[in-house]
Amino acid sequence: MGLKVGVYGGSGYAGIELVRLLAGHPEVGAMSVASRGYVGLGIGEVYPQLAVDGVYVAPEEIEASDLDVAFVAYGHGESAGAVKELLRSGTHLVIDLSADFRLPHEDLYVEWYGEHPAPELLGEAHYGLPEVFGATAGRLVANPGCYPTAAILALAPVVKRMGIRSVTINALSGVSGAGAKPSVKTHFVSVNESAGPYGAPRHRHTPEIETILRRVGEVPEVTFVPHLIPITRGELETIVVEVGEVPEVEEVLGWYEEDYEGWAFVEAREEYPHVAHVANTNRCRLSAAVDSRAGKLLLFSAVDNLLKGASGAALQNMNLALGYEEYLGLEHLR
Amino acid sequence: MGLKVGVYGGSGYAGIELVRLLAGHPEVGAMSVASRGYVGLGIGEVYPQLAVDGVYVAPEEIEASDLDVAFVAYGHGESAGAVKELLRSGTHLVIDLSADFRLPHEDLYVEWYGEHPAPELLGEAHYGLPEVFGATAGRLVANPGCYPTAAILALAPVVKRMGIRSVTINALSGVSGAGAKPSVKTHFVSVNESAGPYGAPRHRHTPEIETILRRVGEVPEVTFVPHLIPITRGELETIVVEVGEVPEVEEVLGWYEEDYEGWAFVEAREEYPHVAHVANTNRCRLSAAVDSRAGKLLLFSAVDNLLKGASGAALQNMNLALGYEEYLGLEHLR
Amino acid sequence: MGLKVGVYGGSGYAGIELVRLLAGHPEVGAMSVASRGYVGLGIGEVYPQLAVDGVYVAPEEIEASDLDVAFVAYGHGESAGAVKELLRSGTHLVIDLSADFRLPHEDLYVEWYGEHPAPELLGEAHYGLPEVFGATAGRLVANPGCYPTAAILALAPVVKRMGIRSVTINALSGVSGAGAKPSVKTHFVSVNESAGPYGAPRHRHTPEIETILRRVGEVPEVTFVPHLIPITRGELETIVVEVGEVPEVEEVLGWYEEDYEGWAFVEAREEYPHVAHVANTNRCRLSAAVDSRAGKLLLFSAVDNLLKGASGAALQNMNLALGYEEYLGLEHLR
Amino acid sequence: MGLKVGVYGGSGYAGIELVRLLAGHPEVGAMSVASRGYVGLGIGEVYPQLAVDGVYVAPEEIEASDLDVAFVAYGHGESAGAVKELLRSGTHLVIDLSADFRLPHEDLYVEWYGEHPAPELLGEAHYGLPEVFGATAGRLVANPGCYPTAAILALAPVVKRMGIRSVTINALSGVSGAGAKPSVKTHFVSVNESAGPYGAPRHRHTPEIETILRRVGEVPEVTFVPHLIPITRGELETIVVEVGEVPEVEEVLGWYEEDYEGWAFVEAREEYPHVAHVANTNRCRLSAAVDSRAGKLLLFSAVDNLLKGASGAALQNMNLALGYEEYLGLEHLR
Repeated sequence: MGLKVGVYGGSGYAGIELVRLLAGHPEVGAMSVASRGYVGLGIGEVYPQLAVDGVYVAPEEIEASDLDVAFVAYGHGESAGAVKELLRSGTHLVIDLSADFRLPHEDLYVEWYGEHPAPELLGEAHYGLPEVFGATAGRLVANPGCYPTAAILALAPVVKRMGIRSVTINALSGVSGAGAKPSVKTHFVSVNESAGPYGAPRHRHTPEIETILRRVGEVPEVTFVPHLIPITRGELETIVVEVGEVPEVEEVLGWYEEDYEGWAFVEAREEYPHVAHVANTNRCRLSAAVDSRAGKLLLFSAVDNLLKGASGAALQNMNLALGYEEYLGLEHLR
Repeated sequence: MGLKVGVYGGSGYAGIELVRLLAGHPEVGAMSVASRGYVGLGIGEVYPQLAVDGVYVAPEEIEASDLDVAFVAYGHGESAGAVKELLRSGTHLVIDLSADFRLPHEDLYVEWYGEHPAPELLGEAHYGLPEVFGATAGRLVANPGCYPTAAILALAPVVKRMGIRSVTINALSGVSGAGAKPSVKTHFVSVNESAGPYGAPRHRHTPEIETILRRVGEVPEVTFVPHLIPITRGELETIVVEVGEVPEVEEVLGWYEEDYEGWAFVEAREEYPHVAHVANTNRCRLSAAVDSRAGKLLLFSAVDNLLKGASGAALQNMNLALGYEEYLGLEHLR
Repeated sequence: MGLKVGVYGGSGYAGIELVRLLAGHPEVGAMSVASRGYVGLGIGEVYPQLAVDGVYVAPEEIEASDLDVAFVAYGHGESAGAVKELLRSGTHLVIDLSADFRLPHEDLYVEWYGEHPAPELLGEAHYGLPEVFGATAGRLVANPGCYPTAAILALAPVVKRMGIRSVTINALSGVSGAGAKPSVKTHFVSVNESAGPYGAPRHRHTPEIETILRRVGEVPEVTFVPHLIPITRGELETIVVEVGEVPEVEEVLGWYEEDYEGWAFVEAREEYPHVAHVANTNRCRLSAAVDSRAGKLLLFSAVDNLLKGASGAALQNMNLALGYEEYLGLEHLR
Repeated sequence: MGLKVGVYGGSGYAGIELVRLLAGHPEVGAMSVASRGYVGLGIGEVYPQLAVDGVYVAPEEIEASDLDVAFVAYGHGESAGAVKELLRSGTHLVIDLSADFRLPHEDLYVEWYGEHPAPELLGEAHYGLPEVFGATAGRLVANPGCYPTAAILALAPVVKRMGIRSVTINALSGVSGAGAKPSVKTHFVSVNESAGPYGAPRHRHTPEIETILRRVGEVPEVTFVPHLIPITRGELETIVVEVGEVPEVEEVLGWYEEDYEGWAFVEAREEYPHVAHVANTNRCRLSAAVDSRAGKLLLFSAVDNLLKGASGAALQNMNLALGYEEYLGLEHLR
């Protein structure tokens, strides 16, 4: 038979990547894909690069109580209501790709995003970064943000082991991270042959990085400066950390090896990661360097924002929640 | 009549940009362009995008004693000998685009580059960043490195006024910064759809930034992490500074306005600079932000690595040394 | 004093390029720039890469009767009305960058574009490709389309001299040719790492190429297939011509030399033109090849769609209409 | 157990793609990868984007008599000798990705490539375009060129059914098609923001297209004009055909459907193919249009030059020769 799966918001970049992955997943039986803007259109008409049969339906056409798994790829604020409804309808597992359930406290959400539509559920969500926090046992997974994924995987092993005085994250992102909606900022002519900072110094991924990292150790306020660069997919973070006594590079690489042993998609190397090393894969690649003159530790972390930073991770979370191998259906993305 | 000008190393990216600019400069009379690899070939044959007459000659074919101005665009270590010879031959003004005369002490040069071929000249060179250090009165100009240009223009006004505890420079560079020589690293397929750090934590522009900045105030060891991104030209630096008490953004923008008033090519704005705002111009665009949560000052600086970061600055230095307006021949690049 | 110039539609890509050029033109005195969408905003706020003072005004704020020259960069159908009004108000010279006055007959316009708002003016416009048709003596210039510019410059010398049996124009265009308006088609993620045909087999530049070329000789129906490629600016046309007896390459290059002698911006070379040879210049570069096996003549033609294909040509037309050198204010774009 | 497979020339772009695919193929047991330039280096060291264990060996380290399948990804002229030796050693199946066995006659090879090192084998090779010519029964497969793949798949159904008077193929190719060797032509700065024709009017894929197509019908000399555009992978061909009586678009699409029914990787659609519709897949996407004014038929064909145009096809050929489903190990590339 196979799993009955529903995708809500299946025409954005994360949504369509999810559809592609689910279509190739061996345990998925029936898949319904909702997208209010394209109801009635074939998925392959809207995205000709996708060899997926099926037609976009309206969200209410999906029988939520029948679903084994629902993925919600709406914007923040819009997602919480849909998630609440799905859980109430009896969907077995809900994986939310928005920011709505990533922050643990309502007040923090209010400060950075605005009013929360379902604050009573905040405590129930499992933060879906399994390499740090394991698989969920509950029904609701908050799929991590793309930047936090790269940042937390790089920083958690350090934070667990050392006191940290200062953290600056400098991030580069491909344009798919800005979403599928056309705008002056995403026009080819605006992006091409350029690069620039945005969102700093108050990008919304900042509190996610801080609060999630504080579950493993003490962390000061994080300075986070993202930049848009002219590539389609991928993110690279260069993280500068001030610590009491700077460790050796080998030591840091050893911590990564120790903490991520047995996980399929996180790997540390001596070689600095480039975006091309992870693009179109579900990997996170890590490295480290020491600026001994200035007494700082440098960490490098790269992910594909649409895969390990969104839909690949969502599938990994589904796999783990349902007791499959984490890489089922993702073998070719290792 | 016009100036007699010689360009040595006129087939690299900085060299060819210089040739293009000199060809349009109203005071330049005769221009000789040397490039050992292309002797006898038309400049427009090697670079069809350049509508410049003239043929590459061997360096020794240029009568150095006749030159009003010589530009040397060789690699470091190769330049010093040529510069020495030009000065000895009687060339009125020598502008060196290499790193050979940028560091003031021989020992520093030895530490970062190796043996210096003409250490006796180190004290005679004027560091050609006129917006900070004015025009040269002597015969030798050390044209600044591209990264140091952006960094020093952003940092000097701050360093003059405040104690600084920590500086991290995160830089993005277009591929022309890696030079015209084909290699795996500059192959289109390697660069496209990727981005990665390189040279850290010991890129050779680090001591240039530190020692030059220390002429205007106290500066700790600088952490400098450059990245290659898939654009042809332009550089963007995001500089994170820890200071005793964080100033307001308006204050910092005011310092920039004050210090760079009257200079044609440096401008601060509230809007963060993007590479596209400076590419194909001789500008440096600056901005600032304050991360009040983390208590850090952010500075942003963008230049075109081939213009303000190399050949445009070289022409500006020539103009100033000879008593012309700094922007003569560069009007369309403001 | 200088010329009084008005730009209508000064915030599209052609408009802003025009503004940049006019700002550097030595004979332009006062420039008014209208753009309904940005009234009251600084030009440099909307386009930070432009170091131009001045604020966008509403079209009706410009006193048309005072203008020496007006440039209209509206879409087709919208332009004709504005042009009519300007001519009636007494503007000395009107240069229309739209398609509204390029086709000589109303019925042809109706077939390809729809109803014409001012058909009585169709006969008065001069088609502004001066290298083929000279300078205008009248008050209205129809500035050529970008694709027709490249096509007609390549084909006119051949058509004048030979009977032609078949013409296929395969064109590549940068994304600025699709306009500044954000859409799915111009989203960075849609364009990047892709390429595709569009508009064929009935692109609206087809009748312009045919009818204009027929002024110099007989021409069969033209097959025109444009493609969008991931570059910002520039167009390349590969034109395959079947003729009675295939000429030698040298012969064709000789025709180009003969016909375009004395013109600053059109040049033929043995080397095939690349987009990079003309981007950011007002040039058209031509070349030719002979496929002797298949008995076909190949012509290659490249222009920058925003310069020689639009705003550079418009300035050239203004210069010629007013009796200046064609390259005044365009010297750095040769 | 699994198949014993050897890859010769496993460090070029086609070679490394082959290694990636073979590493994920369920029937492949042991894989040896030879590359003279990298002997002793880990494959993942040379290509960090590849999560493949194993070390490059020298060609002579592979025991050819043990191999079930050998892939040869050498340059033309170099391949034939290696293939001959492999067949003599007893390798069960040899798939040659070079041009050495694609042309059926020695004299044609001599005309376009030079002397042939093993002309006696020319008659034994099966041209590996299974959708047109089926699976091989012999021991040697000549894997088609990338351009001919796209061209023949588009043209064969037409040539079978109609007399053709003239064919012009205008092709766009990504830079991976130019190979991994660094050169001025493949330098990022040369390719980026440009596009240009090359190889015309005598590109070596021309006789391959002609002679292979002539197996299914009469074909005049083909005009083939390839262009390099700034993308990493993918090819698009716009083919203009003059026929006696121009068919309807639906008719042509029907021929495609009929001829390619049951084949997994070739599909015709009304929508014109873009490179992004096939990049990173083993697909060929076809479409057609009719220029009824000029009386010409337009065909559009897109493939990924490294997959359906090289290594994906090679694996497909292996699958078919060994009796597996054509898409085994390629399921995620449909």
